[in-house]
Amino acid sequence: MKRRANMVAGVALAVCSLAPVPGLAGDAEDIAAIWDAYEAARVAGDADAWLALWDEGGVQMPPGMPARGLDVLTVGVPKAFAAMPASAMEISPVETVVMGDWAFSRGTYTADLTSGGNAVHMDGKFMTIFRRQDDGSWKIYRDIFNSNS
Amino acid sequence: MKRRANMVAGVALAVCSLAPVPGLAGDAEDIAAIWDAYEAARVAGDADAWLALWDEGGVQMPPGMPARGLDVLTVGVPKAFAAMPASAMEISPVETVVMGDWAFSRGTYTADLTSGGNAVHMDGKFMTIFRRQDDGSWKIYRDIFNSNS
Repeated sequence: MKRRANMVAGVALAVCSLAPVPGLAGDAEDIAAIWDAYEAARVAGDADAWLALWDEGGVQMPPGMPARGLDVLTVGVPKAFAAMPASAMEISPVETVVMGDWAFSRGTYTADLTSGGNAVHMDGKFMTIFRRQDDGSWKIYRDIFNSNS
Repeated sequence: MKRRANMVAGVALAVCSLAPVPGLAGDAEDIAAIWDAYEAARVAGDADAWLALWDEGGVQMPPGMPARGLDVLTVGVPKAFAAMPASAMEISPVETVVMGDWAFSRGTYTADLTSGGNAVHMDGKFMTIFRRQDDGSWKIYRDIFNSNS
């Protein structure tokens, strides 16, 4: 019975997705623009611009620490940007899938930071969930990443 | 104009989500059952059972290496399970969101492995995208994880 219920749900949602849905190509462009803004904010050390990319319920899941919400990011990120300035960051999405008012994007990134006077080159990959806001824009809702090496 | 198109899409999809959609509670249960099966397969060292949880286009994004598809997993996972047996694994989802024929789940995990004769305790977090199959079941489509320490 559970299986049948799932199939009914699948059919109903498939019908919805067959209806003309303008703006979806634009959604992928909008999300690419968020990655551009993310890179620019990180290299500029502009924590406010970076934090503005996040949903108010956003959660970041970085390596080496537990998941942390936007309240913790708001306190910690300005300090982290000041302590570890970045000279370059490049985010290369390989896949962006829009699922109604949700989307995910995954890909690879590189960054060049200075930490404690030492140059650090980062080479990793990420997967991110975006949530559509009431005004139609997208914000980062969940973000996790790790190193390739 | 792009903004208006996005808002139209948002309205259309909101109408869809207001329609009765049976089975969504069951979907979250089905995904929890996949995590149970994932733990059991890992501890049993049953690579076939573990690989059967994946979508045919699945991609895993583990720490310390580039992303790898199911073709690479099919060759590598039986060797990895044999080389690094696990005595325990516990996956604790903290959030599962169903988005039509897609879902994401995130949470924490612990595992106790033996690697090269040494006991290894893992304590990390994960985020996973599931894709609904033609038969209504769910499979792992994208999976990324990292350490908390």
